[in-house]
Amino acid sequence: MERSFLAYIRGRCRQLPQVDIGIGDDAAVYTPIGQQVVCTDQIIDGVDFRWPEHRGVDIGYKSVAINLSDIAAMGAIADSALITLAIPKENAIEIAGDVYEGIIEAASEFNLAIIGGDISTYDGPLAISVTMIGHLAQGQLAWQRSGSQPEQIVFASGAFGGSLLGRHLRPTPRVKLAAELRAAGIAVTAAIDVSDGLSLDLDRMCAASNVGVVLETDRIPIHPDAVRRSEQSGDTAFRHAWSDGEDFELLFTVSPEDAQRIESSTWSCALTRIAKTSARTGLWTMEGSKLIRLSPQGYLH
Amino acid sequence: MERSFLAYIRGRCRQLPQVDIGIGDDAAVYTPIGQQVVCTDQIIDGVDFRWPEHRGVDIGYKSVAINLSDIAAMGAIADSALITLAIPKENAIEIAGDVYEGIIEAASEFNLAIIGGDISTYDGPLAISVTMIGHLAQGQLAWQRSGSQPEQIVFASGAFGGSLLGRHLRPTPRVKLAAELRAAGIAVTAAIDVSDGLSLDLDRMCAASNVGVVLETDRIPIHPDAVRRSEQSGDTAFRHAWSDGEDFELLFTVSPEDAQRIESSTWSCALTRIAKTSARTGLWTMEGSKLIRLSPQGYLH
Repeated sequence: MERSFLAYIRGRCRQLPQVDIGIGDDAAVYTPIGQQVVCTDQIIDGVDFRWPEHRGVDIGYKSVAINLSDIAAMGAIADSALITLAIPKENAIEIAGDVYEGIIEAASEFNLAIIGGDISTYDGPLAISVTMIGHLAQGQLAWQRSGSQPEQIVFASGAFGGSLLGRHLRPTPRVKLAAELRAAGIAVTAAIDVSDGLSLDLDRMCAASNVGVVLETDRIPIHPDAVRRSEQSGDTAFRHAWSDGEDFELLFTVSPEDAQRIESSTWSCALTRIAKTSARTGLWTMEGSKLIRLSPQGYLH
Repeated sequence: MERSFLAYIRGRCRQLPQVDIGIGDDAAVYTPIGQQVVCTDQIIDGVDFRWPEHRGVDIGYKSVAINLSDIAAMGAIADSALITLAIPKENAIEIAGDVYEGIIEAASEFNLAIIGGDISTYDGPLAISVTMIGHLAQGQLAWQRSGSQPEQIVFASGAFGGSLLGRHLRPTPRVKLAAELRAAGIAVTAAIDVSDGLSLDLDRMCAASNVGVVLETDRIPIHPDAVRRSEQSGDTAFRHAWSDGEDFELLFTVSPEDAQRIESSTWSCALTRIAKTSARTGLWTMEGSKLIRLSPQGYLH
């Protein structure tokens, strides 16, 4: 199976000039541009999706998109990916074909070369592991989680909650936004992408930066899916936005001056000022004149 | 689990100067040295090993060693790895700990930084996927499978067959040999590592180079394990050497002049001249004055 897949993938995938040797040898060889940025994320049937209820093409798309989200959260540009599939033995070729449709769709959309991978069939659930390699443009620093300071402004892209209604399979990784912020010269001081929940990932970024935040909770952008979910769950739409996860939106901090520049420009997606960082660690909000502590909630592995 | 593992891995793993941001952020950042070489290989319980019959520490070691073998087969130097684990829910922490012992052992032995990874627990067999990144020294070309020409000499490292008796879990990736050949200025024209079987991988290298080989079959180095296996299986030791696979030895071609230089030097492992390439494609051997065609056999995914 591997051999025919190689031919298929070779034929379908974008070739990038920096890839000197692509799939088919013991390893791929490429000429790096600048500092390299690399991440890996797997998704598994029963944990991150439900096959065959979810279509193979969407599952494949998701496996690439979530890694694009990580690279974008570093302020970097994704170049290439390696794809590892573990496929249930029954109908393995059909499943692999469906999944690869989605992988190739995402790779084409975001200009990625597929430079390697591995395929096994086994007695187990469909699992896809993607390693993505990107680069930082010359002279640019990565957007680490740890770079924020007190008195900076926290922005969120897009809107949150209810992604399990289907959006989680077709997230829009904030690749374009990251490029726009770089091009505009906005100095992002810290960033993270929201996979496990708005509050949980915000808390992680704050902890890494050794700051806290005071949230304007009524400014948190709530996705229509969160409202729909709340009608089923009995929980509030805010609670879904706060903790659902799989939004693959960016949270990032900037100086007050850059915050003003952000708010006076237009961007390819909504950007909302949701909080200000503080020296007091933890997540907080003001109720009248009182600081109330909020607890982060989300999906813990 | 992920968080405590991060702390554990950070504490145990070698830090490399070229890694600017290691595990713990959305992605790792490193400053590349030269052309980059990258590969990925997964191993799965029931396919590539049998847990718990095989120990977690050995399984972890194998997952790294087989990728080191691929990087060595390109004539490159491995620098870093990303590790993705899918672990059965029951006793997940214990299993992950055992597996990581072996991963860290191999990483320490071969001077690798662990720069990223992912861990999931699920209802399925233990599976480990490793992506490895290395580099080519300045001015060096990768050892592709496709670079051989007729009238060159095929060498094999080590010995073949019977690795399933246990050797396959603790292979010696030919990292040192690759470095020695580079240092000696031997111009390797094509190379492949033997994972699926001596004959099958030799055939692949020949096909990629569009050459054939005439083998001196009595020169093929047969491992004592192949003899032991043949006593159980009733098959010949030669047949085991020919097709068993999981040897993780190197096959490579050089000019006749370099072949003489190889045979007049000593190396960190046995190097045996086993064949000569020819314009006539396929695997052949001489019986008396007659050319006999041999069929490649091995493990087909």
